[in-house]
Amino acid sequence: MTESTKPYLIRAIYEWCVDQGFTPYVAAAVDERTRVPPGYARDGQIVLNVSADATNGLQLGNDLVTFQARFAGKVQSISIPVENVLAIYARENGHGMAFEVEAPGHDHALDAETEAPVSGEPPAPETDPDPDPDPPPAGGKGGHLRIVK
Amino acid sequence: MTESTKPYLIRAIYEWCVDQGFTPYVAAAVDERTRVPPGYARDGQIVLNVSADATNGLQLGNDLVTFQARFAGKVQSISIPVENVLAIYARENGHGMAFEVEAPGHDHALDAETEAPVSGEPPAPETDPDPDPDPPPAGGKGGHLRIVK
Repeated sequence: MTESTKPYLIRAIYEWCVDQGFTPYVAAAVDERTRVPPGYARDGQIVLNVSADATNGLQLGNDLVTFQARFAGKVQSISIPVENVLAIYARENGHGMAFEVEAPGHDHALDAETEAPVSGEPPAPETDPDPDPDPPPAGGKGGHLRIVK
Repeated sequence: MTESTKPYLIRAIYEWCVDQGFTPYVAAAVDERTRVPPGYARDGQIVLNVSADATNGLQLGNDLVTFQARFAGKVQSISIPVENVLAIYARENGHGMAFEVEAPGHDHALDAETEAPVSGEPPAPETDPDPDPDPPPAGGKGGHLRIVK
């Protein structure tokens, strides 16, 4: 049983997005524990559209965020530990919540990424309308994300 | 329709408390919009036990937190605007979330309190086991509360 409030807050922001008609995006640190399509991470991070339109079987669990989504037309099963979630926010206005993930500077994520299998496929965001690789709004710009330590 | 994430976060922390077996406490700024028993506020704030054991008909709505609870043996109907909620946290460890409420220094709350009807009843926390008037853990002490601006 988890003792962290983080999965509860992730679900809360997701529900807020849905109720407001916004598109929920999740940013996550990619490492050996994440199962994401190769080639979509940038600087050890990936941003995923987790709206009902873009996913199937979305589970915002206490330990894992899991769902299926299409990448370049191919269905992939995604699994992200809650620990790796950096932020969840609305695409439309950047409002949501950011979390501090251990390993500042993403050293852990980068280190791990080099150990993870890499397919060599280049990023192809142009051909993929669903998972949006746009980076989350920077704190200095929109300023809507709340950093939760 | 609310556009604030705050009620969603309040519900999230409440659910986390319940799932962990903790006692959820709500701290609120008292003003003309709150309906709370007179004599229980300190410095314009009130702390209430909102656990299932201490309340009846608890509603954590998007605009209002409402419930019934016993104060000195008498059932009272409580109503607190979500805007007035300062924090929700677990009594057992102080973990939870704090919110910035407008009017720093509680000037608004204090001003309003002087306009609200006062029954003249003195605070009687000793005779009342349910709503606990203990102040929330200070940021400098427990440091578990996350301040959300």
